[in-house]
Amino acid sequence: MAEFTQSNYIIDTIFHTTEAGSKFIKVSQNVKFQNVTETELKKISTLTTPQDALALIQIPERTNISAESFNGKFVLVLDGVQDPGNLGTIIRTADWFGISDLICSTDTVEAYNPKVVQASMGSLSRMNVYYEDLNRFLSSAKATVYAALLNGKSLYETKFDNEGFIVLGNEGNGISADVKKLNHIAITIPGFGKAESLNVAISAAIICSELKRNR
Amino acid sequence: MAEFTQSNYIIDTIFHTTEAGSKFIKVSQNVKFQNVTETELKKISTLTTPQDALALIQIPERTNISAESFNGKFVLVLDGVQDPGNLGTIIRTADWFGISDLICSTDTVEAYNPKVVQASMGSLSRMNVYYEDLNRFLSSAKATVYAALLNGKSLYETKFDNEGFIVLGNEGNGISADVKKLNHIAITIPGFGKAESLNVAISAAIICSELKRNR
Repeated sequence: MAEFTQSNYIIDTIFHTTEAGSKFIKVSQNVKFQNVTETELKKISTLTTPQDALALIQIPERTNISAESFNGKFVLVLDGVQDPGNLGTIIRTADWFGISDLICSTDTVEAYNPKVVQASMGSLSRMNVYYEDLNRFLSSAKATVYAALLNGKSLYETKFDNEGFIVLGNEGNGISADVKKLNHIAITIPGFGKAESLNVAISAAIICSELKRNR
Repeated sequence: MAEFTQSNYIIDTIFHTTEAGSKFIKVSQNVKFQNVTETELKKISTLTTPQDALALIQIPERTNISAESFNGKFVLVLDGVQDPGNLGTIIRTADWFGISDLICSTDTVEAYNPKVVQASMGSLSRMNVYYEDLNRFLSSAKATVYAALLNGKSLYETKFDNEGFIVLGNEGNGISADVKKLNHIAITIPGFGKAESLNVAISAAIICSELKRNR
């Protein structure tokens, strides 16, 4: 929560126990404070063991964005990721590797789902998350689209540009047929054992690490 | 489940719907079959939407093992990993990268926890999982112990031997004080953003990828 109070998010109210109250002196915005008991906090929180405070934060309005806005950057693109734990972990991992923009297909799980917020461990406060029609968005991209697929070029032999869109697909079905029709370079994490696939957050992490290791 | 029937695990009974019955002709062991309805299957399964069959499999007896048994191999070592989803994902990822041995501290979550089995996506059937007193086990290790810590040498600059133990710690507290006292090389995944840490399964994956990328 501390990370959100230090971000551009608009905080409406902070509900806090008496002991936790003094922690929030530095919140400079026009924030309301409400003292609650631990029992009340447990009732309003989605967690079984909540912290000693909870913030009501305004979800920013979503606007559409063009692929050109990301010139010079690497951007993760999620095509139908369903599991909130996976999305939260991807946000945390991208933040670790200095990637601050995430484009989600409209059928990707909602980024403000409480389980996403929790798994992101505060990194959601630093991530720009957009929901876009990927077909429209990626067809207008001038930077290279790299798609994580099972039959692509080895990730370890891929020479990445200095910018680009890294597309990762749904947990069961991978990248959608529509997106696969667009211009892309297929990249694959080489396997050395018998597992059929990798978890999508794991794949995202390995690709992010590879992108950054030589820079 | 198919992966367990093709492994060394001893299958006791396969509970299956009428439609699923013919799938199991190839099970050559002394396996019992029991026809059940979908409702019955739902009752005995821990999943909300179970598959059309469920196997009752014998958990092998655990024996202690010496560090020498792993000469010439890379082995993952988990020190107090608590989340079953993390353990399952680590098993799936290790299997992808051809690592087949996992040493867990005695306070690591149980590998046969249903959530571990599910997250491992069949890879548990191919993984040798041992529970050991890490202090005892690692102090007898002749191969290098690499410990994932926040203040170590960059993973990308680490020259790995051809064998070794890769230690990853608990989700909140990292590697225990006892294990940190043992001889080790501290390795760190360089961060480029503001996230405070990485999920343990993510760290395991990035290290496994790095171990394999040049071999």
